[in-house]
Amino acid sequence: MKIGILGYGNLGRGVEKAVNASSDQELVAVFTRRDPASVKIASPGVKVLSVDALNDMKDDIDVLILCGGSATDLPEMTPKYAAAFNVIDSFDTHAKIPEHFAAVDEAASKAGKIGVISCGWDPGMFSLNRVYATSILPEGEAYTFWGRGVSQGHSDAIRRIEGVQDARQYTVPVPEAVERVRRGENPSLTTREKHTRECFVVAKEGADKARIEKEIKEMPNYFSDYDTTVTFISQEELDANHKGLPHGGSVIYTGSTGDNKHVIEYSLKLDSNPEFTGAVLAACARAAYRMNKEGMSGAKTMLDIAPAYLSPMTGEELRSHYL
Amino acid sequence: MKIGILGYGNLGRGVEKAVNASSDQELVAVFTRRDPASVKIASPGVKVLSVDALNDMKDDIDVLILCGGSATDLPEMTPKYAAAFNVIDSFDTHAKIPEHFAAVDEAASKAGKIGVISCGWDPGMFSLNRVYATSILPEGEAYTFWGRGVSQGHSDAIRRIEGVQDARQYTVPVPEAVERVRRGENPSLTTREKHTRECFVVAKEGADKARIEKEIKEMPNYFSDYDTTVTFISQEELDANHKGLPHGGSVIYTGSTGDNKHVIEYSLKLDSNPEFTGAVLAACARAAYRMNKEGMSGAKTMLDIAPAYLSPMTGEELRSHYL
Repeated sequence: MKIGILGYGNLGRGVEKAVNASSDQELVAVFTRRDPASVKIASPGVKVLSVDALNDMKDDIDVLILCGGSATDLPEMTPKYAAAFNVIDSFDTHAKIPEHFAAVDEAASKAGKIGVISCGWDPGMFSLNRVYATSILPEGEAYTFWGRGVSQGHSDAIRRIEGVQDARQYTVPVPEAVERVRRGENPSLTTREKHTRECFVVAKEGADKARIEKEIKEMPNYFSDYDTTVTFISQEELDANHKGLPHGGSVIYTGSTGDNKHVIEYSLKLDSNPEFTGAVLAACARAAYRMNKEGMSGAKTMLDIAPAYLSPMTGEELRSHYL
Repeated sequence: MKIGILGYGNLGRGVEKAVNASSDQELVAVFTRRDPASVKIASPGVKVLSVDALNDMKDDIDVLILCGGSATDLPEMTPKYAAAFNVIDSFDTHAKIPEHFAAVDEAASKAGKIGVISCGWDPGMFSLNRVYATSILPEGEAYTFWGRGVSQGHSDAIRRIEGVQDARQYTVPVPEAVERVRRGENPSLTTREKHTRECFVVAKEGADKARIEKEIKEMPNYFSDYDTTVTFISQEELDANHKGLPHGGSVIYTGSTGDNKHVIEYSLKLDSNPEFTGAVLAACARAAYRMNKEGMSGAKTMLDIAPAYLSPMTGEELRSHYL
């Protein structure tokens, strides 16, 4: 199947790697809103084209994977391109998923295409695990922990503070909270009890470090509800030890059947968040292509995709080797 | 939806509990090959009927959940009843799944019904996790560990030894092996390196314990390939401490995207194996009912079921609260 990628940031590069690693997918082109000549991609021989070129490429691309941001790009992009292509996105503003779904559903249904939204790991694989668990054990509770991993949004928030040259923020689950959940205690946990935030900050020369630390720790929404530690380091140390984008976390579901308790745990430990997320998007592209071939259309999420559609293997192969 | 249960052993009781806990399912009757008068069930007011009564109940049951054994019951039962009902089974003889699938597919397709085979946790939830992981990260390896939990097959094998009054066998993953896999070492592990077997045995009075221990440890297929410990205990101790049927295990998948490594782990810790398995079967019954209403038919496995079908919630509810 012929794949297009729109947007070439960290996620776009992750998708590119996954598509190139898939035996049944061919990367047709990377599309960009920047000057195509300024974008160098990792795939030899693959074109970089202006986003405008998509207007004439309806028949050249089976699935278009949208690698824009959830804040402003995807709410506009996904419905727009679903009117002409099967599309995949990683829309992750949980509160706005219903309206995004509705907009994509309208466009995709009209076009007879499929738009799979909110692919990745949360939303995505974590959502699947929450749904499987609560479907099997309606009596129970789902706990989601994120990290240890880099939050790009929180890192950006720190970088916007005056006097900050660079920063990396790690979200870290509180081990005691995880253990209490695993033991089946069903605790009520506050935001502060679930995660801590570790900030590694490079201050500009002469900047007031005490003020920076105070501004970080008191920042509403981002840090004020958490126990936050701030460590000032040099740019060299940040470059040497904090340039990766690891992430992960776990969904722990504790449920019961009468007196018997059951614990279901799904956890991810990812060296590269964008590369794993990109790999999920590539698998969803495969599913969208096949489901559309079978006549399905409209907006979907990973909850609507039978797992077998994600695999390049046949049903026979899956039943023989993976069931 | 109206549910029938065929077979009332541990699994049948687990399904009964799950169906009664499901707001959208009603247990119509339990069917048995024994004398119905001899079978007392846990659901007040629900009938126990002879298996022969099924012949006249095509219109009274939406989904029939088959709680027979994989060795001799299900290969015959599932195709037979798929010719008249949507059916669910927990067929778990991995090597024979392709031929069982084919037989059920023929019967169910002809009848316009759905037959979901091999539901449970392995095959079942573990299979799903193997497929999701390998679909996302084709470069990687899946490791499955079982336990700590009671293997009923191995317990039965010990009970067949002369001089044994009762027995319980626990399958236990080797902690070092699990740790090596989690660390991403991708080890090649022999059967002996992955699991040990712990046997708690009640010997009949005057029985030769040394001989019993030797017979257990040398039993081909069941124990000879494992490091096995045998502990003789009294019937009182076995009844007090080993009457439950806990089980569980984990699927650990270590994969990579280029130089970056990723570890996906799915684990279950179940107080009651048959009650959890029964709960999975009840969820699959919900999916089968809905998929059949939408016009689908033939044999399916959990790999063919979009997760949303398993939940009593609507797509809107799932997207708002679980995505």
